[in-house]
Amino acid sequence: MLENIRIVLVNTTHPGNIGGVARAMKNMGLSDLCLIEPRRFPHADASARAAGADDILTNATVVESLEDALADCHLVVGTSARSRTIPWPLVNPRELAAIVTPLPSTTRVAIVFGREDRGLTNEELQRCHQHVHIPVNEQFSSLNLAAAVQVITYEMRMAQECDVSDAKPRWGTEWDVDLADGRELERLFDHFEEALTEIDFLDPDKPRNLMPRLQRLLLRAVPDKIEVNILRGMLTAIQKGCRR
Amino acid sequence: MLENIRIVLVNTTHPGNIGGVARAMKNMGLSDLCLIEPRRFPHADASARAAGADDILTNATVVESLEDALADCHLVVGTSARSRTIPWPLVNPRELAAIVTPLPSTTRVAIVFGREDRGLTNEELQRCHQHVHIPVNEQFSSLNLAAAVQVITYEMRMAQECDVSDAKPRWGTEWDVDLADGRELERLFDHFEEALTEIDFLDPDKPRNLMPRLQRLLLRAVPDKIEVNILRGMLTAIQKGCRR
Repeated sequence: MLENIRIVLVNTTHPGNIGGVARAMKNMGLSDLCLIEPRRFPHADASARAAGADDILTNATVVESLEDALADCHLVVGTSARSRTIPWPLVNPRELAAIVTPLPSTTRVAIVFGREDRGLTNEELQRCHQHVHIPVNEQFSSLNLAAAVQVITYEMRMAQECDVSDAKPRWGTEWDVDLADGRELERLFDHFEEALTEIDFLDPDKPRNLMPRLQRLLLRAVPDKIEVNILRGMLTAIQKGCRR
Repeated sequence: MLENIRIVLVNTTHPGNIGGVARAMKNMGLSDLCLIEPRRFPHADASARAAGADDILTNATVVESLEDALADCHLVVGTSARSRTIPWPLVNPRELAAIVTPLPSTTRVAIVFGREDRGLTNEELQRCHQHVHIPVNEQFSSLNLAAAVQVITYEMRMAQECDVSDAKPRWGTEWDVDLADGRELERLFDHFEEALTEIDFLDPDKPRNLMPRLQRLLLRAVPDKIEVNILRGMLTAIQKGCRR
């Protein structure tokens, strides 16, 4: 399970923090690190703070966008300091471990960490199935990036190694179909946007919260591949119907 | 409880680590830091890594011996990388939190962290009631000092703040909208069936599993009233579009 968890860092400013994250990951048995446009990387500060976790840095993927980072991921979790404009499913690190641990072994999970100074944007957070929040002292709530990764990966390891969770499979039963990955969900949401615009339900000039609300609804359910195909088929039928 | 926990650092070499520990402590709501003969302290690196937790550094006690650090403590816990010559009570951080949390509020607890390179000596460990071990990857087991403090104080905070036995809102956060009731969902599914038939996506003579799959998907997400309204509005727009 730990090998299937990707740590995604968005626009990290200090290369030392990337090294600290690599060390925390390796301490907990994770290895998949993905960097979205880091300010400076590779960098001597990263290697110094990695303190021997250089392999994690060497094998890190550097990409340009969140879409690239999440393309093959089935469950995306965003780290969030506070509640946002519309509520989103929010768990603490232990609850997250209880969700992730029972998933089928083919499930690829991404945990996304934001910028040192201002975290993730609303738009980035809306790409996530789940948000996770570390219960900090509200009077001093800014965690160091590597510290946040340490706590969350510690919980993942505890759940796997120390068998403390009485976690049940997510839906209490074996699923018969693979879950949709990030690329498939991305296409689905694009298709929704396109079709809903064609039938004048979505006004691109006044989108309100329509797409975030639809995304949140569907992400909460964590759709499988057949379900995504059904929705895509429905959208195509809508477009054909309107073009007649 | 958190105010009664003293973090004791023995012979810390890098002042930056002392700052990182102060930040981790304050993040989790602890304030009592005791330093036994630190190599360099106070130091600019400590203040830099503290990132605003300067009050913890200012109020830190600097002492010469473990005896001085522990004089008024009732329970002493040593952090240990591995089992020592003779077995000692050894718990993981979660088990430690379960031991510490129910103690009377007057109990003063010390958690002792060793040197960056070689931890605590056997003699120091034998001064402790308990040992605590963070379950790390045995192939890469050396945790950064601040990371170790972060994980252990996180568990203390979780035990105090997040009584996980409490029933929580379904998504871990207050929702802003009431959930849809059974009648609303029934109408939604009827509406889906009607609209999907109109656009020839659903064939009433060969319905396959289309409606059960759609229902299962939406029910898994447990939609709220706004989400149901959005879907109903979308279905109405689809019907209008096709009747044009």
